[in-house]
Amino acid sequence: MSTELAIGIDLGGTAVKACLATASGVILQEIQQPTRASGGPEQVITLLTSMIATFEETARGTGDLRGIGVGAPGSIVHEEGRVISPPNLPDWHDVPLGPALQEKSGMIVFVENDANAAALGEAHFGASKDAPNSMLVTIGTGVGSGIILDRKLWRGEHGFAGEIGHVSIDAEGPACNCGSRGCLEAYVGAAYLTERAAAFLRHHPESPLTAYSKDELTPKILADSARNGDRASYEILYEAGLKTGLVLAGIVNILDITTILIGGGIAAAGKPLFDGIDTSLNTYVIAPLRGKLSAQPARLGNKAGMLGATVPVFSQHT
Amino acid sequence: MSTELAIGIDLGGTAVKACLATASGVILQEIQQPTRASGGPEQVITLLTSMIATFEETARGTGDLRGIGVGAPGSIVHEEGRVISPPNLPDWHDVPLGPALQEKSGMIVFVENDANAAALGEAHFGASKDAPNSMLVTIGTGVGSGIILDRKLWRGEHGFAGEIGHVSIDAEGPACNCGSRGCLEAYVGAAYLTERAAAFLRHHPESPLTAYSKDELTPKILADSARNGDRASYEILYEAGLKTGLVLAGIVNILDITTILIGGGIAAAGKPLFDGIDTSLNTYVIAPLRGKLSAQPARLGNKAGMLGATVPVFSQHT
Repeated sequence: MSTELAIGIDLGGTAVKACLATASGVILQEIQQPTRASGGPEQVITLLTSMIATFEETARGTGDLRGIGVGAPGSIVHEEGRVISPPNLPDWHDVPLGPALQEKSGMIVFVENDANAAALGEAHFGASKDAPNSMLVTIGTGVGSGIILDRKLWRGEHGFAGEIGHVSIDAEGPACNCGSRGCLEAYVGAAYLTERAAAFLRHHPESPLTAYSKDELTPKILADSARNGDRASYEILYEAGLKTGLVLAGIVNILDITTILIGGGIAAAGKPLFDGIDTSLNTYVIAPLRGKLSAQPARLGNKAGMLGATVPVFSQHT
Repeated sequence: MSTELAIGIDLGGTAVKACLATASGVILQEIQQPTRASGGPEQVITLLTSMIATFEETARGTGDLRGIGVGAPGSIVHEEGRVISPPNLPDWHDVPLGPALQEKSGMIVFVENDANAAALGEAHFGASKDAPNSMLVTIGTGVGSGIILDRKLWRGEHGFAGEIGHVSIDAEGPACNCGSRGCLEAYVGAAYLTERAAAFLRHHPESPLTAYSKDELTPKILADSARNGDRASYEILYEAGLKTGLVLAGIVNILDITTILIGGGIAAAGKPLFDGIDTSLNTYVIAPLRGKLSAQPARLGNKAGMLGATVPVFSQHT
């Protein structure tokens, strides 16, 4: 019997990452190209189609290519493969991406929300492998998550599930660009975090980072500085962890799931962030779980999305 | 074919409410008796056994009695029918209630957490009938919930799911008796609510309720006073609604479920509470759902638990 293969595509606002992979998550070929989103949906679909052709060529003789999975930003009408108004893909108001790729390739295509695809990737091939329930929280420019309950993605009634970035932890907190207040993203999303960091550093002249403006500060610079012993940088990241852990504790109280992964650019901050998360998580969770929880770093990095996108392809006939 | 029947028992700290009911939720006979919890588990089990015998007598000739369902407080080890340390049943440290009743009655027994049983009741026979996803939040002395996802109860990994009362909305908020801070229960649970109300009223000499001490105040008195035009009483209940709605918005953001029911003693406060809930819910939920949500009052009142307890009995062979 020949090896089953699938094409996994992670469609981002800046880059498309795609691979040809086996059902056990072994990547046979990988391609990354700039999305050039300004060219509009048609041009992006042409790019994806040419990537697919390359993978088909490779698959020939190697295995049995079962189909294509795509992780895409924005709201996804999963059953119809439609992508609705992702903030980072201008002019994608309602694009039937699945049907378009299906028509051009002749293969079955599954389109999933990118946060969900990444959660599936970690749950099948990464840090939450073998956990029946898990959550992958991605902290970068935005803050999102994918939730796996009883080994299945939980999408909710409109495909909006997992919007952890807009859970408010303070009814009178800072304004979020979603129109609400106190959203987790308004504390720990990359832009907000560096802005808060710059403000905090103004009161900490002892920090080597005082010289940085908020546009120069990055989570990586903060993490490096914390690692080099700068207390102020540690505090900033620890505080971001505390906020994140508070929301996570609430989610654990509601869902009683214990496998929580943290990924995305800010997760690279490492120890200070995770220290904060675990402290808060174990403070605000219901008593019987206190002291027992620990968030884990995601393991697949930026490969989680494209690998996770292949999962529905392989599970279609199981 | 004879009618299928089940016995449903709602075991509370103060009273046991039980019924003989059909699969469509028609109650043929209903019994309520004081729990007399101070007598310990053995005595309560004897009480339940005698209630069961009464129902068996009634069922004879009327229909086909399929089994017994119990909603019990505390942590429930569902598969084994064990009840672990409910706060309102002293000496129930780890009681094999299911096996005990099964042995005495010769019937199959399903034991479920009481909040879950009530959620099942509403989902099958009450206000959330026909909704695939729903949540019943019970606000009384404690604040809890039962969550139905995809027509099934979501219990979580340890049976702790739905602990909405201990979701913190303020990391530095009031201390909760669970050891955490800012828990929803520490704002809207009956004891905390009347305490907060008494403090608030001290600054509102115009309210007719100023004369009441916190021990005299009840949610019903507040609700009646609000209905009679007392602004301060309205504010107190509206504020409790705002806090509840903030937590609910977070849950909707995570789960994307839209059928939310409110039950329990405090829910009887009616309009001021629900006004607050809906305001907050529609402020802090993600943008695409804003303005579209409305919490609904539970419909079965204190019959939800015993009716919901019968659901697993009827679904065992479907």
